[in-house]
Amino acid sequence: MKPPLKIAIAGLGTVGAGVVKLIETNADVLASRCGRPLAVTAVSAKNRGRNRGIDISHARWFDDAAEMARTADAEVVVELIGGSDGIAKKVCDTAIAARRHVVTANKAMLALHGTALARAAESAGVVLAYEASVAGGIPIINALREGLAANKLSRVYGILNGTCNYILTEMLRTGREFADVLREAQTLGYAEADPSFDVDGIDTAHKLAVLTAVAFGAEVNFGGVYIEGIRHVSAQDIAYAGELGYRIKLLGIARRTEQGIEQRVHPCMVELASSIAHVDGVYNAVVAEGDFVGRTVFQGRGAGAGPTASAVVADLIAIARGNNAPAFAVPVADLVKLPALAMDRHIGAYYIRLMVRDRPGVIADVTAALRDEEVSLESMLQRGRSPEGAVPVVLTTHATEEAAMKRALARIAALKTVAEPPRVIRIEPLEH
Amino acid sequence: MKPPLKIAIAGLGTVGAGVVKLIETNADVLASRCGRPLAVTAVSAKNRGRNRGIDISHARWFDDAAEMARTADAEVVVELIGGSDGIAKKVCDTAIAARRHVVTANKAMLALHGTALARAAESAGVVLAYEASVAGGIPIINALREGLAANKLSRVYGILNGTCNYILTEMLRTGREFADVLREAQTLGYAEADPSFDVDGIDTAHKLAVLTAVAFGAEVNFGGVYIEGIRHVSAQDIAYAGELGYRIKLLGIARRTEQGIEQRVHPCMVELASSIAHVDGVYNAVVAEGDFVGRTVFQGRGAGAGPTASAVVADLIAIARGNNAPAFAVPVADLVKLPALAMDRHIGAYYIRLMVRDRPGVIADVTAALRDEEVSLESMLQRGRSPEGAVPVVLTTHATEEAAMKRALARIAALKTVAEPPRVIRIEPLEH
Repeated sequence: MKPPLKIAIAGLGTVGAGVVKLIETNADVLASRCGRPLAVTAVSAKNRGRNRGIDISHARWFDDAAEMARTADAEVVVELIGGSDGIAKKVCDTAIAARRHVVTANKAMLALHGTALARAAESAGVVLAYEASVAGGIPIINALREGLAANKLSRVYGILNGTCNYILTEMLRTGREFADVLREAQTLGYAEADPSFDVDGIDTAHKLAVLTAVAFGAEVNFGGVYIEGIRHVSAQDIAYAGELGYRIKLLGIARRTEQGIEQRVHPCMVELASSIAHVDGVYNAVVAEGDFVGRTVFQGRGAGAGPTASAVVADLIAIARGNNAPAFAVPVADLVKLPALAMDRHIGAYYIRLMVRDRPGVIADVTAALRDEEVSLESMLQRGRSPEGAVPVVLTTHATEEAAMKRALARIAALKTVAEPPRVIRIEPLEH
Repeated sequence: MKPPLKIAIAGLGTVGAGVVKLIETNADVLASRCGRPLAVTAVSAKNRGRNRGIDISHARWFDDAAEMARTADAEVVVELIGGSDGIAKKVCDTAIAARRHVVTANKAMLALHGTALARAAESAGVVLAYEASVAGGIPIINALREGLAANKLSRVYGILNGTCNYILTEMLRTGREFADVLREAQTLGYAEADPSFDVDGIDTAHKLAVLTAVAFGAEVNFGGVYIEGIRHVSAQDIAYAGELGYRIKLLGIARRTEQGIEQRVHPCMVELASSIAHVDGVYNAVVAEGDFVGRTVFQGRGAGAGPTASAVVADLIAIARGNNAPAFAVPVADLVKLPALAMDRHIGAYYIRLMVRDRPGVIADVTAALRDEEVSLESMLQRGRSPEGAVPVVLTTHATEEAAMKRALARIAALKTVAEPPRVIRIEPLEH
């Protein structure tokens, strides 16, 4: 058997400790699968004294993670600190400069610096691996870069944030409002004290930017992602979605067209018959559509120590076996730099919920605004009467350009009979 | 750029032609992803003159596929002839002996000779790759051997035969009987003229034997697979399944326990809430359960020229990149040879449909037989009365040992009031 693959781990939080535990627990099968043992030879974290329930006595301790990346007796540096810049970025840059392979779970860093990191790794002749950065335990990077590599992909989309999916699932199950369910998720540890990163769609956008790059062999373009979170999704909208045959999911969607690449993150109405409509709770899912393979769907746990450690160690196994593929499927020089498609040019169907004063002529005014912008109505639903207060009117449209939709909505919002800003959710047509 | 990877293809049926077409259509991205072009340098098939809609003018033609495997100017031989033995096997043996990599879609051959082929390939220092042999376009071999390789898997199961899944889906949708839907599937080309290979579960069993080997790092043991097809599933059973909150699916299931490995293929009642219950038509799905990753689900098209070509070319890309992993995840010497668990020892719940004469005391006799064998009843359903003819009685049991269930069923079948042989379908508990 070959000598061990020596590994330095920067960051010993939940995931870092999970990686150490996995390498220890499954040492026998890992050695057999890799043709050599995996050995954690160095570790670095903030607090040396903390009890993490793992044995790190055989590893050399570094207070300074960057120093470890530069000098440790290790072929691979695993970066599990997080954050797009700062120490995490320094650890990766230092490791690559010292010609060590890098394994990271850091989607924020990859979303902002992915192309530069891949270029540096390629020049240094080392691997940049990041299976754990997207969709937790689902081996989706491996699938896109290897399993589906024979295909030109046209679209990749998925549920990439467990917190949002948990909140939307609970809102559906209990009929409660966003703020209420968020508070509970925070108590249960499913949402952070500051939840904006998750619920405003930024985390999903980071992951989508990475997925897009590897799916289409394109430079990472986080700036090109349109982002909208789930804060404005109300219990009412979720109930109406059900009535109309939909579920509401926060999706990250990337589509390659002749004109460029569309990347968008926003709540979507997806048909009940689609596989993604039934991915609930903290599960993630990714759908990839290729020219030869057709539609493939991947589901699994999107976060947590176990699933994330599974993904990190999968990268270590590939390195131990000597396997390699370009970080984003093709050499950095071949990465395409396609224009980001503007959201105003997006063509799609829309769900609109208005709160209107229950007066004769309201619907005529609303439909006139839609007609004037050539937005074609698919259905209209007005439930309940309330001569005093506002009542909900729900509309769905046929496919229309987003710019026209926005102009029509501005006119509708300005109507005296419309009591609140219109709520809009895009209807996403998915193959079943 | 490195010189092309030279490829010889044995068999130019639907899949072979699909592979040639894919390599031609996506030549640009393939070269970029592999760091070298893929070049088909030799082909062999039965009928040289046939128009396949592909350009093979640059490839050398061989009438004798084994001769091609021995002498062609190629690093890789792709075997797409099929059949467990005969010429397909000879092509693979010859290619390995000539130190050429082998890519095959041949599950029957792998089910019967997988371990021997892997051993020969390992000794010769060449790759034995077979992504296309299981679940068509779903990159499940890659996922098990690489993406999930950090885990010890406890169970792997799936819908592995599109013909059976199409028939069961159509039976549910239309309420028609098996024979009727089979005939239609044959007309539409979804089922063979001789359908026994598919509908009797043999094809699923071949694929399961391969999956089991790579999932658990075990020698391929097709002989250890319990096999039961879908011929006896009736429209009535499908309707009752729906009423009880289940769908009927033909699953291949492999489970590793302390005692050995259980491999079984049979119709299963699966809860409507499980992801696999909603995999319909010609789609396949595989679920893998690992100690760190938890449950992961993979779905896609299980057959057809495009998806199968996608899988074959994924293997070629890995070879072109110089990537490699042992055929069944670990070196052949490390493959475990665990005993096959006997079906009589299987513990599970059962659905039983009896056709009984509508007389007082029938149910008492049936339940007494169950009690005597210590089979515990979960539910009982008797619909409709018919003083003259037979009426259906549907029972479900709690978990019990299959041997006890069989003894109870023998007693029940012998009752004078039981008009037809009892119909039994196992209820499979799946995580959601």
